[in-house]
Amino acid sequence: MDEWTLVYDSYLAGQVKLREALCTLGNGYFATRGAAPESIADDVHYPGTYLAGGYNRLTSEVAGHEIENEDLVNLPNWLPLTFRIDGGDWFDLGQVQILDYRQSLDLHRGILERSVRFADNRKRICRIGQRRLVHMGMPHLAALSTTLVAENWSGHVEICSALDGRVVNNGVERYRGLNNRHLEPLQVKEHDAERISLKMRTTQSRQEIALAARSRLYRNEEHLESTPECRSEADYIAHHFRIDVVEGDTLRIEKTVSLYTSRDRAISECSLDALNTLHRAGPFEELLSTHSEYWSQLWRRFDIGLKEDNGEQGARHALTLRLHILHMLQTASPNTMDLDTGVPARGWHGEAYRGHIFWDELFIFPLLNLRLPEITRALLMYRYRRLEAARANADAANYRGAMYPWQSGSNGREESQRLHYNPRSGRWIPDHTHLQRHVNAAIAFNIWQYYQVTGDMEFLSFYGAEMFLEIARFWSSLAHFCKTHQRYEIHGVSGPDEFQTGYPGSDKPGLNNHSYTNIMAVWVLCRALELLALLAEERRAELCTMLDISEAEIARWDDISRRMRVIFHDDGIISQFEGYDQLEELDWEAYREKYGDIHRLDRILEAEGDTPNHYKASKQADVLMLFYLFSSEELSELFERLGYPFEYETIPKNIEYYARRTSHGSTLSRIVHSWVQLRSDRAGSWRLFQEALESDIADIQGGTTPEGIHLGAMAGTVDLLQRGYTGIVTRGDVLWLNPSLPEEMRCLSMCIRYRGHSLDLEIRQEGLKVHARASNASPIKIGVKDGVYEIKAGEDREFQL
Amino acid sequence: MDEWTLVYDSYLAGQVKLREALCTLGNGYFATRGAAPESIADDVHYPGTYLAGGYNRLTSEVAGHEIENEDLVNLPNWLPLTFRIDGGDWFDLGQVQILDYRQSLDLHRGILERSVRFADNRKRICRIGQRRLVHMGMPHLAALSTTLVAENWSGHVEICSALDGRVVNNGVERYRGLNNRHLEPLQVKEHDAERISLKMRTTQSRQEIALAARSRLYRNEEHLESTPECRSEADYIAHHFRIDVVEGDTLRIEKTVSLYTSRDRAISECSLDALNTLHRAGPFEELLSTHSEYWSQLWRRFDIGLKEDNGEQGARHALTLRLHILHMLQTASPNTMDLDTGVPARGWHGEAYRGHIFWDELFIFPLLNLRLPEITRALLMYRYRRLEAARANADAANYRGAMYPWQSGSNGREESQRLHYNPRSGRWIPDHTHLQRHVNAAIAFNIWQYYQVTGDMEFLSFYGAEMFLEIARFWSSLAHFCKTHQRYEIHGVSGPDEFQTGYPGSDKPGLNNHSYTNIMAVWVLCRALELLALLAEERRAELCTMLDISEAEIARWDDISRRMRVIFHDDGIISQFEGYDQLEELDWEAYREKYGDIHRLDRILEAEGDTPNHYKASKQADVLMLFYLFSSEELSELFERLGYPFEYETIPKNIEYYARRTSHGSTLSRIVHSWVQLRSDRAGSWRLFQEALESDIADIQGGTTPEGIHLGAMAGTVDLLQRGYTGIVTRGDVLWLNPSLPEEMRCLSMCIRYRGHSLDLEIRQEGLKVHARASNASPIKIGVKDGVYEIKAGEDREFQL
Repeated sequence: MDEWTLVYDSYLAGQVKLREALCTLGNGYFATRGAAPESIADDVHYPGTYLAGGYNRLTSEVAGHEIENEDLVNLPNWLPLTFRIDGGDWFDLGQVQILDYRQSLDLHRGILERSVRFADNRKRICRIGQRRLVHMGMPHLAALSTTLVAENWSGHVEICSALDGRVVNNGVERYRGLNNRHLEPLQVKEHDAERISLKMRTTQSRQEIALAARSRLYRNEEHLESTPECRSEADYIAHHFRIDVVEGDTLRIEKTVSLYTSRDRAISECSLDALNTLHRAGPFEELLSTHSEYWSQLWRRFDIGLKEDNGEQGARHALTLRLHILHMLQTASPNTMDLDTGVPARGWHGEAYRGHIFWDELFIFPLLNLRLPEITRALLMYRYRRLEAARANADAANYRGAMYPWQSGSNGREESQRLHYNPRSGRWIPDHTHLQRHVNAAIAFNIWQYYQVTGDMEFLSFYGAEMFLEIARFWSSLAHFCKTHQRYEIHGVSGPDEFQTGYPGSDKPGLNNHSYTNIMAVWVLCRALELLALLAEERRAELCTMLDISEAEIARWDDISRRMRVIFHDDGIISQFEGYDQLEELDWEAYREKYGDIHRLDRILEAEGDTPNHYKASKQADVLMLFYLFSSEELSELFERLGYPFEYETIPKNIEYYARRTSHGSTLSRIVHSWVQLRSDRAGSWRLFQEALESDIADIQGGTTPEGIHLGAMAGTVDLLQRGYTGIVTRGDVLWLNPSLPEEMRCLSMCIRYRGHSLDLEIRQEGLKVHARASNASPIKIGVKDGVYEIKAGEDREFQL
Repeated sequence: MDEWTLVYDSYLAGQVKLREALCTLGNGYFATRGAAPESIADDVHYPGTYLAGGYNRLTSEVAGHEIENEDLVNLPNWLPLTFRIDGGDWFDLGQVQILDYRQSLDLHRGILERSVRFADNRKRICRIGQRRLVHMGMPHLAALSTTLVAENWSGHVEICSALDGRVVNNGVERYRGLNNRHLEPLQVKEHDAERISLKMRTTQSRQEIALAARSRLYRNEEHLESTPECRSEADYIAHHFRIDVVEGDTLRIEKTVSLYTSRDRAISECSLDALNTLHRAGPFEELLSTHSEYWSQLWRRFDIGLKEDNGEQGARHALTLRLHILHMLQTASPNTMDLDTGVPARGWHGEAYRGHIFWDELFIFPLLNLRLPEITRALLMYRYRRLEAARANADAANYRGAMYPWQSGSNGREESQRLHYNPRSGRWIPDHTHLQRHVNAAIAFNIWQYYQVTGDMEFLSFYGAEMFLEIARFWSSLAHFCKTHQRYEIHGVSGPDEFQTGYPGSDKPGLNNHSYTNIMAVWVLCRALELLALLAEERRAELCTMLDISEAEIARWDDISRRMRVIFHDDGIISQFEGYDQLEELDWEAYREKYGDIHRLDRILEAEGDTPNHYKASKQADVLMLFYLFSSEELSELFERLGYPFEYETIPKNIEYYARRTSHGSTLSRIVHSWVQLRSDRAGSWRLFQEALESDIADIQGGTTPEGIHLGAMAGTVDLLQRGYTGIVTRGDVLWLNPSLPEEMRCLSMCIRYRGHSLDLEIRQEGLKVHARASNASPIKIGVKDGVYEIKAGEDREFQL
C-alpha cells in the first residue's frame, strides 16, 4: 500500500458519504466537500467554509423551550459539472454500467483524482478522469480538470458548468428538521463566454459570499472557442457548452473558481476581487504545480518518519497519520492565520456541532506548536478577540474575570444547546454541558504551552497575559472556602465526561469538587503567579491596573493554589468528583451483551428511563486527563503544594481503576488512555493507538465521520508519536525528551520547531539523535533523563537510551 | 503654558476648521472629527474612519479623460446633540452672545472639553460644558457628556440626540464637484426610551456600518426617566427629550455610542454587536477613567522628556510634540493592530488624498518601531496582504516581482490620479506621480528597520522576506544594462520631488537615473543578498522555489548592486537625475518677490504656462533623502561598492547645494532638511525643526491642515528628537547612539524598546545614560562612538560625550 495515497478502487454506493468526508479538500479558507463520484452529477455536494452565521431556531413542543443555535453555513457549491450525450439524460453514475472505477486522494500533493469508465444504456463507452485541487498557496482559488474520452462513439456533448447557491445544511440527519437554509441570493452574472459569478449572503450574519468561475474547453488539447448558453435563476447560474465529438476524441474542461467573502481583508468589494483573482489565475497545470509546491513545504514541516518491521500495517499507519495531518492542515494552515477562525471539533466541512469551538485545541495545538507555532498564535488570537465576550459571560453568571463558553459561537457567546435529542428514545433531554468550565483551564494551558515552545514574550505580555490573568481570576471567583474542610471548593460544574452531569435525584445540575477541574484551577493559579513574576515590571503594573487585580486577589490565588480540595477514595483513587464513590457499579458485561456497542451508554440508559448519573461509568475518564496533560514530576509538585500524598503508584492505580469504567464514547478518550498507558502498559497503549487511528478512516462510531472528521483525535494520534513516544515536555525553558518507542516501532523521525530552532529528531529503541539546523537562533537547553544540555544551531547530540 | 493641554480661550469663527482638525478625537478604529462648538449644533461634523470604499467618478471635459478614485468614506455622525428652550430656535453659536468660551484638548487623557457661557436674544444665560472621548481601550465606544446650566431662567428644554447617516465628503474644497455621497441607508431603529440605532452601507465596497446610541438624562444629577419622541428618516434617527428646568438647575446628557462594521472580527452581525457592546458600556465617568488609564499607558511608552532653558518656548515645543504623538496614536494604535489598515498621509479624519496609502510610513515607522513595534508589524502586514496586487501591478507594467503602487487603494491597486487640478490656473494637468517607484524601496527599508529593531525573525522569515525578495526582483527587472556606460540604469521614474516629473519638451513622462531611486535600488539589492544569507537554509530554499528565484537572478542582483549608475555634476554634487545639470537656475528671489509664498511653485509656473521641469527647483530635494535615511558610514559603503568616490565633504556640499534650490512644498521637506543639517548646521537645523513643528498647529501651508493633519511630519518631528538628536542607528544587531543635542536643549529623555528591552535614555550636552529595565530578554549590544558594549537587563551604562 502506498503511504501517500488513499485509494478506493471500486465503487460502493453505500460508502459515498464516508469517502466524501475523508476525501474532502480544503485549504483553511476554502473548504470543500466532495470526493464522491456524484460530484460530476451535481447533487450532494455542499462545501463548508469558515463562515458561521445562520441561526437554527428550534422549538421543542415536548420541552416547551425555544432555543437558537448558530450553524456552520455551507458555501455555495462550486463543483457542479456534468454532461449529457446527444441530448439524453444527464450523467448519473447510478444509471450506467461501471466498467472501471478508481478514486484516490494524493496526500502529498493534496489532489483528489477520480477515474470512471462506463457504458451507458446505448453501449457508448466513456472514460472520465477528474483532478481537483483547492489551492494551498492561493487560498481564494480552487480548480477542477475533467477529461472525457469518447471511446467508441461520436456525437454531441452538452456540458453544464455551474455555481449553485441553493445549498442547505443537511449533513447531519438529526438536524434536518431544523431551519437549514442560511443563504439568500444577491446576484448572478454572466461576464463573458468563459466567466460567470454568483453572490449570496448569509441570512443572519449578513456575510456576502462571491464565487466566480471560469470554464475553458479543449478538444484533444486544442482550445475551443465556444459560445455557451447561460442559464440562471436567482441563486444558480450555469454555462452550457455544446461540442461535437468524434470517436477517440478527448474533451477536457478546466473549471477554475475563486471565492471571496465580505469579511476578507485587502478587498474592495468581494465579487470584484473574486473576478480580479480569477483573472490572474493561470491554467490548471500551473495551479497544480504551485499548489503541490506549497504542500511539499507543509509536509517538510509536518511529516512524521515512521519505520516499522510489519510492512503492510506500518504503511497503513503512515497513510492514516498523513491523512490526519492533511485534514488538520486543511482546517488550520498558514491560510487561516489572517482569518478570524478557531479550530472546530469536526473540521470546516462537517456540520456536526455546527462549527462551534470547544476545547479541542488542547489536543490540536501540541502538533501545531512544534511545527508551525504561528498558527497556534493566530488561533489564540481568535480567543483574545472574544475576551470581552468571555468577561460578559462571567459577569452574567456572577463570576469575575473571563469565562469562555463551552461552545463558542461567532462572536464568542455561549452556544451550548440547552436540550439535546436522543435518537434512541426520541426524547429531548435537558443539557447542562455548558457547565464544562474546564475549557477555561484548557485555554490557559494552551497559552502557556505556546509560550513554552516559542518563548514568544511579546505575545505573552501583550495578549496571553491578559487572557491568562482574567481566566485565573475567574477560577478564583468560582472557588469558595469551605470552613468544614478548611479548603477551597468548586461546585456545580461538569467535566469532559458528558455522562456525568449531576447528582442522582438532585434538581441542581453540575458536580462538586470535580478533581480534574479543581486541579486544573490550581495549575492555572500557580502559572498565573509565575506569569506575574515573568512579566516586565511595567507591564505587570499596567495589567494589574487595567484589570483591577489587587494584592489581595493575588494572595487569594496563592492561597487557593495551596488549599484546593481534592477528594480521594479507595486508598489513592482520585475521585472523579465528590460523591463518585457512592455511585453504583455498572454491570458492563450485561450491557455489552444486551446492546453490543455501548459507546453511547448515556443514550441507552436514558432510553431505559435510567441515567448514567447513577453509575461509576464514564464516556471518557476525566481523572486520566491529568496524566495526559502533566508529567508525573509536575503532578507530584501540584499535589505536594496542596499537601496531598502522591506516590508513583498513584498513576497506574488510577489508570487501571478508570479504564475499567470507561465506554470510550468520545474519540478523544482512546488518545488519552493510550497516552497514559504509554509507559505502564505498552501493549495496551499500542492497541488503543491503533483503534484511535481507525476512528475516522473506518468510521468506528458508525456514521459520525460523514458528519465531519474528528479533528482532535486526528491531531491527537499524530501527537502520540510526536510527544508521546518521544516524551517531549516543554517546561521551564527546557525541551525535555524521554523517548519510549512501542516495540512495534524501529525508528521514529521528525523535525520540530523549538524557540526558533529546527530540530531533527531520530529515535530508535536504543538511542536518540538531535540535530539543530543552522540558524541564527540563540542556544537552547534540552533535557534527557536527568541531564540538561545546551545545544547550539548547527550542533548534533546523541544519547543512549 | 500647560505642556499637556491645547487651549483656545476665545471663540474665533474663522479658526473653526483648523481647530476641528487639531482637536479631532480617535482611537485608530473610531475616528471622529469635531472640536468646533458647532458640534453642539449638529451641522459640520463628519467623522472619518478607516473605511475606504466609495469611488469618485471624475470626468474632465477639458482633458477628455474619465478617471475613478477611491475615497475615504466618512462615518455616519454620532455627535449630533442640540437643544432649544421653550420651543424657540435650535441652539446656534452664531446667533447668541458669547460671554465665555474655552475649548481644550487634554492630551494626557485624550479628552476634549468645551465650555460656553452665552446669553440668547431673550437674555437667558446658559452655561454649557461638554466632555468627549473616543475610548482608547474599548475601540468600539465613544461618549459625550454635556451639561447645561440654566443660570437665570426657568423653562422647558428640548434636547435632540441623533445619529446621522446623511454625511457627505466635503472636507476638501477642490473635490466638492465630485460625487460625495458614499453611504446608503439600511435601517434605523428605536430600541427603547434610551437607545436608537442606525445602519448604513458604503455604496461601492458594501461595508455595513452600524451605530447604536444611548442617551441618558440627569437633572441635578438625578436620573430622569423620560419618554422621548423618536424622529427618523431613512438615514437619520433622533430622540427628542422634553424637560422642565428651574433657574439654577443643571441638566446633564450622557450620550454613549458604539460602532461596528461588517468587516470587524469576532462579530455575529454588526448591528447586533453594536447593541451588545452598548449594553455592556458603563456610565461616562467609568468610561472616562478606563480611557484615561489606557492613555497613561500609551504615554508611558511614547512620551519624550524635554527640558529647555527657554521656558515658554520649551513648553510650546513639548505641547506640540505631544499633540503630534496624540494624533499618531489616534491613527495607528494597539486598536489598529487587528484591523487591515495602513497609515494614510493625512490621518483618518482628513479627506485629503482620499485615505490612500503612500510612503509616509518611512517617516512614521521609526517612532512606532522604537516604542510599540507590534504596531509596525501590523502595518507591514497591511502591505503583505496586498503583495498579490503588487505582483499583478508589476506584471501589468511588464516588470517582475512586486511593484507596490504609489497611492495604494483598498485592495492594493494603484489609485494615483492621472490628472490633477491646479486651482491657480483652473486647469486639469496630466499627472505622472504614479511613476514614484521609490515607494517600493521605502517598504523594503521599513521591513529591514523593523527587523533590526525587534530581531523578529519569525516575521522576517514568514512575511518580510517574501515581500523583500519580490521587491528586490522588481528593482532588478526595472534596471537595464547600458553598454555605453557599462553600468545599470533605471529610466522613466519620478522621485518624491513632485516638481520634477519629466524632461522639458519630452512626450515621455519620467526621469532617468534618478539618484535617490538608483541608490535605494542598490540598497534593496544589497539587503536582499544579506537577507538570503540570514534566512535558515530550508526557508531560503522554500522561498527561492516558491518565488522562482534562480541563482542567475541572485547573481544579477549582486552585479546591479555593484554597477548601478549614479550621476554627479559640479564636482561631487549627486545629480537629482540625469540631465539635472542642464536645467536652468530659477530666479528664486524674483518669484518670492512676485508671489510671496512659493511653496507650490509648480502651480505658479503652470499657471504662467511654464513648468518646474525646466528648472533646478525642488519641492523637496530627493538627494538629501539619502542623508536622512543612511549614516555616512552606510552611504560610504554603498558608494564604495559602486566604485564611486564618497568623501566626508560630499554631505555638507550636497546639502548646501540643494537647500538653496528647494521650496519646501511638502511638510516632509523640513524634517529631512533639519535632519541632514543636524551636525553641520545646528542653528539652521533647529530653525527648520521649529518650522516643521508648526506645520499643523499653525497650518503653515494656509489651509491644508483642515483637510487632514500631516502625519508624516507629525511623527517626523518627534523622531527628530528620538533618533536625530540621540543619533540612534539600528544596524548589524547593534543599537548605535551618537547624541548631539541642539544648544537650546539641556536634557532629553525617553524610554525606547529594542530587541525585547525597555531602555531608559537620558541625554545631556555632556553625557549619556542608558538603563535597561529588568526583564528576561537576552543581552544586547549598544555602540557609542567607536565602542560596542554589551548591556544586560537591569544594567546601567554611562558615557561621556
